[in-house]
Amino acid sequence: MATDSADETVTAAFLVIGDEILSGRTKDKNIGFLADYLTAIGIDLREVRVVPDVEEPIVEAVNALRGAYTYVFTSGGIGPTHDDITASSVAAAFGVGIDVDPRARAILEAHYPPGQLTAARLRMARIPDGAELIENKVSKAPGFRIENVHVMAGVPSIMQAMMDAIAPTLKTGRKMLSRSVDADLPESRVADSIAEIQARFPDTLIGSYPRTNDGRFTTQIVIRSRDEAVLSEAAAAVETAIQDALGAQAK
Amino acid sequence: MATDSADETVTAAFLVIGDEILSGRTKDKNIGFLADYLTAIGIDLREVRVVPDVEEPIVEAVNALRGAYTYVFTSGGIGPTHDDITASSVAAAFGVGIDVDPRARAILEAHYPPGQLTAARLRMARIPDGAELIENKVSKAPGFRIENVHVMAGVPSIMQAMMDAIAPTLKTGRKMLSRSVDADLPESRVADSIAEIQARFPDTLIGSYPRTNDGRFTTQIVIRSRDEAVLSEAAAAVETAIQDALGAQAK
Repeated sequence: MATDSADETVTAAFLVIGDEILSGRTKDKNIGFLADYLTAIGIDLREVRVVPDVEEPIVEAVNALRGAYTYVFTSGGIGPTHDDITASSVAAAFGVGIDVDPRARAILEAHYPPGQLTAARLRMARIPDGAELIENKVSKAPGFRIENVHVMAGVPSIMQAMMDAIAPTLKTGRKMLSRSVDADLPESRVADSIAEIQARFPDTLIGSYPRTNDGRFTTQIVIRSRDEAVLSEAAAAVETAIQDALGAQAK
Repeated sequence: MATDSADETVTAAFLVIGDEILSGRTKDKNIGFLADYLTAIGIDLREVRVVPDVEEPIVEAVNALRGAYTYVFTSGGIGPTHDDITASSVAAAFGVGIDVDPRARAILEAHYPPGQLTAARLRMARIPDGAELIENKVSKAPGFRIENVHVMAGVPSIMQAMMDAIAPTLKTGRKMLSRSVDADLPESRVADSIAEIQARFPDTLIGSYPRTNDGRFTTQIVIRSRDEAVLSEAAAAVETAIQDALGAQAK
């Protein structure tokens, strides 16, 4: 990573752009991928939005998110077809022009056989003024970064390759560490003691996640902290609380 | 459905609440489910947001979305543990009080064995003033509706049961119909003709969705319209365009 500032919290938002996600026709796979990816490199994903392929909501979301978080990532809407309006919407959000970019055009010219760089394909070389390109190892047509906004493709394999290209340029915070403890109990049976542990360890984030397993309710308690020692102490307290609850149940 | 007003467009937003989705630990299944569900009953899902279990972003999102769309649906954060703060955050968004609701308490009292309705479990009976309960056939603890905001559990099986309880109370618009046409071509080869068809049929929404299949690029064209005749005519034009492009390729 470019910078490793141990005490700074680096935050991010993810903007998924596409009618197909909102209609249910395509099931998003990028949110889960990006959440895992950012967590692994020490960036806190704080918000996700999904908006349609319509300029006004894209502009509104880009402008709301880029002011609120260290980084914004977007997926979708940078292909060659008429409904791919992400690039021009991002340009509008920044109030800059957009045109065919000579660097992007050169990449596409090298990729397609002579005469095959149609007007539609050339749309993929339209990049907002002042943006840097993001490499696309899968299908060549690049994404781009303008200020803190990273614009990527929606096809998961391409989006993932673009994240690998972006990651070394990102500053990352101190990694959030996590420990999970499974409890063979419904969460209501440990809720009071977990709340007490959360109060006792304010530098941790303790989450309680109910599960159903063939109609039986179990719970996963996840303890998160940027400090390994605090994490271990809190996790031990959670384990003790669960053993106590199981003991009480057995009586 | 309660009302079937053929010409009104009914819109919705979905607010997913939960640190576990943003950290990647849990992969959301509710967005895809709700998108399919609403599409099927003629409600346009226009926006999705994912926010953490933190009051301020929940309040902000609830207030932004409930003013912008016919309905808001939320999932997550209504269980018995300390990190379940959706109910109090929604009360704060509406500026109303929240307390243990006698109807919700009665449901929980009937469900748990005598003496088992702990303080933690009783948290699940805390309902904002003026809200109606949403039945939970799976694990009893109810969701609630306040004005146009429907608050549901995050566990998919419970959330789905709650949607079934809510659906008959919703007004629904004229159903969006769709037709999809598969093209064994990268989308850039049909982009120009699809853009021309979109311009010719302004009452349709034509989406072009690239796929990768073992590294080979194919395209699915989806035509959406509320009018069956218009839909058929536009779909036929798309099929012709694809055949023409395949013919040109074969030459």
